[in-house]
Formats: sequence, C-alpha cells, structure tokens
Amino acid sequence: MVQPPRRGGGGRPTIGDVAALAQVSKATVSFVINDRPGVSPQARQRVLDAIDQLGWQPNAGARALSTKRSQTLGLVMRRPPELLSTDPFFPQFVAGIETGLAPLGYALVLQVVPDEETERQAYERLARDGRVDGVFLTDLRTDDPRPALVTELGIDALIVGPPQHGGRVPALGVDDGSGVRRAVSHLRSLGHRWIGHVCGAAGYVHTEARCNAWRGALADAGLPEIPPVPADFTGAAGAQATHQLLDLDRPPTAIVYANDLMAIAGITAATSRGLRVPEDLSVVGFDDIPLADCIAPPLTTVRQDVLAWGRAAAQALVSLTEGGEFQAAELPPVEFVVRASTAPPRT
Amino acid sequence: MVQPPRRGGGGRPTIGDVAALAQVSKATVSFVINDRPGVSPQARQRVLDAIDQLGWQPNAGARALSTKRSQTLGLVMRRPPELLSTDPFFPQFVAGIETGLAPLGYALVLQVVPDEETERQAYERLARDGRVDGVFLTDLRTDDPRPALVTELGIDALIVGPPQHGGRVPALGVDDGSGVRRAVSHLRSLGHRWIGHVCGAAGYVHTEARCNAWRGALADAGLPEIPPVPADFTGAAGAQATHQLLDLDRPPTAIVYANDLMAIAGITAATSRGLRVPEDLSVVGFDDIPLADCIAPPLTTVRQDVLAWGRAAAQALVSLTEGGEFQAAELPPVEFVVRASTAPPRT
Repeated sequence: MVQPPRRGGGGRPTIGDVAALAQVSKATVSFVINDRPGVSPQARQRVLDAIDQLGWQPNAGARALSTKRSQTLGLVMRRPPELLSTDPFFPQFVAGIETGLAPLGYALVLQVVPDEETERQAYERLARDGRVDGVFLTDLRTDDPRPALVTELGIDALIVGPPQHGGRVPALGVDDGSGVRRAVSHLRSLGHRWIGHVCGAAGYVHTEARCNAWRGALADAGLPEIPPVPADFTGAAGAQATHQLLDLDRPPTAIVYANDLMAIAGITAATSRGLRVPEDLSVVGFDDIPLADCIAPPLTTVRQDVLAWGRAAAQALVSLTEGGEFQAAELPPVEFVVRASTAPPRT
Repeated sequence: MVQPPRRGGGGRPTIGDVAALAQVSKATVSFVINDRPGVSPQARQRVLDAIDQLGWQPNAGARALSTKRSQTLGLVMRRPPELLSTDPFFPQFVAGIETGLAPLGYALVLQVVPDEETERQAYERLARDGRVDGVFLTDLRTDDPRPALVTELGIDALIVGPPQHGGRVPALGVDDGSGVRRAVSHLRSLGHRWIGHVCGAAGYVHTEARCNAWRGALADAGLPEIPPVPADFTGAAGAQATHQLLDLDRPPTAIVYANDLMAIAGITAATSRGLRVPEDLSVVGFDDIPLADCIAPPLTTVRQDVLAWGRAAAQALVSLTEGGEFQAAELPPVEFVVRASTAPPRT
C-alpha cells in the first residue's frame, strides 16, 4: 500500500511558521538547516527549537502551496550541446546547486540553449510562465545582455562569477586570480622565469579576469611576459596553442593552461615533439578533473571546490528570492595541487 | 524597450489546434517539428501546412495554460555529488534531453540525490506536487524499486536503458552488447586470443547486460574467458583492476574497459610496470570522452551517441505524457573508434 499523496494546507507547519516562532527570517531558517555560517548561536538554537516544537520537516513542508511562488530556480546554459561534456564545471556546479536546494524543498529547472537569441527567449519564458523564482547567470560574457534582461524581466538573479563594476545583479564567485598567482609562484620557486600561458576563450568575463591576473602575477614576480595564447578549452585548441608557444624562438620552460583538458593535450603535443614532461617542459592545468592523476605524469593543477560554490550560490539565490538580503558567502579558497608534471627547468 | 510578456489565451493557436487541423495526434506534431522518423510524408506535409496556416510557434505556443499539466519532465540522478563529474554520460544525456524538449516548450527539472531513501522521496514529491508530467529512470539497478514506485505513484516514466523482462514501464536503450562485441571482434582480428575485461560497478542492469554480452562475445569467437574484474568506474579502480589482471600467471595481451577513465588509468598502470601500450598490451575504452584522442597513445574506444539517445528519450517521454503510444525510437548504433592503443600482440 502506498500512502495517498499529501497536499499542503491543514495543520502542516511552514518554514514561515518556524521563522515566526524563532523570531528570525525564513532565510535564516534556510541557513540553519543547511549548516551555513553567519547565524548567531542564539538564533540557531531558537530555529532548532522551533523546528522541534512544530515538528516541521523541510522536505515535506517547504512548499508553500498558498503562495504563487514556484520554489524552483532556473539555470540556462548557453553552449553547443556537443561541448557540454568537455566542461567539468557544469556537472559539479549542478550537483552543488542540488545539495543546496534539496533541503529547502526547491527544485532546479535546467535549459541548454545554443545561441544568444534562444538564451533570451529562455529567460523571458521562465519569467513569463512563473516557472522559476530566480535564475543563475553563468559564464558571463563581456557586454553580456543578461544582467539588464533579468532586471527588465523583474526576476531575481545571481551572477556566478566575480561582481560586475556598476552592476545591480548580485554576484558570487571565487577570486579567479588566486589560481594563476599560485601557479606562477610555484613555477618561479622551481626556477622558471620564462612561462607561457594558454588562456580560455575570448569574450568571457572569467577569461579576462584570469588573463589580467596572469599579467599581474608575472609583473609582481618580476618575470617577462610571453603574450598569452587564447584557446577554446578543447584538446585540439590546447595542442595547437602548445605548438605555437614551443615554436617561439625562445620557447617557454613551463606552460600554464586554463583547463586540464588543454594541459593534457599540451603534454601529448610536447611529447610528440620529443620533449619530456616535466624534464624539458613543466605543465600546470586548471580544474583537477578525475583524470588529472590517472595520466603519466600526473598533472599539477588548480582545484576549485565547485560543489561548494554551487551550494553557496543556491543558498544565496533562494535567500534573494525569499526577500532576504544578499550575503556574499565565504567560498573555499582554490587549492594548488602539486603532482609530477612540474619540475625545475633544465639548466 | 522590452515587449510586455505575452500570455496565452486569445487567438494564439496551440499544438492541439495544429494536430486537429492536420488530423494527427499532438505527438505526431512533436515528431514532425523535431524531424524525427516514423511519420509518413503525407502526415508530415499536413502538419507543416497546418503550422503555416495557423502561424503556430512551438516555443511560444506550446504551453497549454488551460490544462493542469506542468509541461515539465523530471530527472533524478542518484549518486554522490562528488562523483557526478566523473561520468561523461550525465552532461551529454541532459544536453540531449534539452534538445528534445526545447522545441516542444518543455522544461527539465533535475535532482541529484545521495541514497535510495532520498531518491524515493524525490519521486514522491515530484508526483505529489504535480511538478512534472513524467520522469526518466536512469542507471537502473537489479531489483530496482523505481519501476514499481512510479507505477504506484501513477506518474508516466521511461526507463533509459534496455527493456526489463516483464516490466510495464517502457524502456529506451541502445544494445549494450554491441560495443563489447565490436571490441572483441577488433582485438581478435588483430590476433589477440587472451583478453581481459574490467567491467562496471556491480548491481546495475547495464553492467550485467554488458558482462553477459562480454561472455557471449568471447564464446562466439571461440576464445577462453578470463573472469571479468568489476570496478566502480573511477580511475583508481581501473588501475587496481589492471594490476590484478597483469598479475595473473598468464596476463592478458589486451584489456577492454567499461569506460575511458578506467582505460586511461589502465594505460598509466601498465606503463608503470614497464609495459608499452600498444606493443605489450592493447587497451580499449568505452565512451570516447574528449580526452580520448588527446593522450598518448590515443585511445581505441566505443562511441555512443548519448546526445541522440537523450533527445529520443525526451521525445518518447513527452509522447507518453501526452497520451501517445510509446514508440521505441531508432537510436544510432554505437561506433567503434580505432586509434593507436590497440595493435597485434607480441609473438
């Protein structure tokens, strides 16, 4: 026998009842049940007591059927579907969003769109149909129309990435420069002074941020700059950029790549020219994909806790849609993972 | 100036109007606008004429606001969030679902759950709240409670994988055996007669299907069987299984892996023992991940068109939820991609 579906109403307590009894906002209740920092011990205890007293269950009770709200957030990814699986960010970020939303009883609506026009239609439709209470904006482009669009549509939104100058849409992102600074610092400590960079696809805010950070890190370290080679994050582009750098009159002794896929393709490209990694060329990736330590040599790379980022973004956007103040959550700092693809340069 | 949101009603034609005018089912209209086979040329032309005549636009008009239906499908993935990015199936399948749903005006609600209990709650909640019209069931386990659960919940569902004996839930999957048969045939034609297999995690229907296909393919080829070594799809497990096979008194001259990640870790494991790939050991993967041709040696592997599979699954489930008959779509056959990780055995 299966229990008949239980519908809201009746005496079932809501998150609002918990908030009222605990004398806190609903956002604070969300934070407490997600074990998120920023709530005082006293408020936390009041929330836990209220939950106990009311017998409130996050999953069953979270959806307030009496409101018009959908308790759903939207994520629109713009990229060719074929390329979606080359990006380790996407599944981890989605999983992180899920770990943030599930305890709140929220769901995620996902859309993958191929171009800017379809992207615009997707946001308009999500807003028009009331399918979502808020949307994430990922992969922000330079001159991106979306912050203005969501403002005009009157829908809550959160930029996943660094804050925009003068922008009114809240943003939650890690410091993109930290990873490249760690890479430069590591290579410099090994003795490298002539370091190449294969950066990401042009037109993205995060590519620009990392390129600027790259130039700054070299300048701070007193190292000369080889112009970064842009590439589109694919293995083929990573191999081509590697050959371009190694064809220089004075090729670099180390290369830092904007993702692991390009770095691994770069190792293969260098090896095909008779170079040994790391003896003749040091290689640093970015992402720490599962394969990074399964290859020979295991890849030195930068690890971002994308899962935690997704979770924090979900909690921040829920808080925004429930009328809470935006609080820029503390994200875990990037880790620099030293493996065997980096070594001192040949003298 | 932004156009005001346009709401349904008024004279805006629906997909039902198109179907009525063309004298076909709504599912047939869906098939035509998705360019899917199985519609007669005459019916196809009537649908296109009706679309022209009514000025119907799939995206704007698809949502029938007068019905109670959510025009949303659900995908619940059960796995630890940390492992989601190790699986190339997930992002490609989701992207494929999206390419199928977008033209129909449907959305996808995604949930990631860590265990069986949370999984059950997720389906119950999706059904109870009317958030979705139907759900996909992926990664079917042996003795999986979900087919019975969705039947009890009265929600339309589609199993993504081979049909179940005696099951009442429709299934759409590729022939899991085809890839392993192609691998065995390729290796046998190179002269291998002693072939090892690192199979997937136990407890999944697809692992069992492929293991059975593996035994059948060896038997059909008149080759002796080395017991397949189960592994959990991670690189570490792939490396360990490889060492286990290479430690045999008579180690295999070739190993076929259930995914590329384990195969690549296997190459590294073999190389660490002083073996050369493919001279001393041939290696075959499964998936054709973007990295497969970026490593040295480039990986011989099996490629599934997961994007097409996701698209077909989306169309089939929409058709089911709209009351149409289930039609098992033709999925593209797997491709066998021969690269440089396989060669004749040393004599």
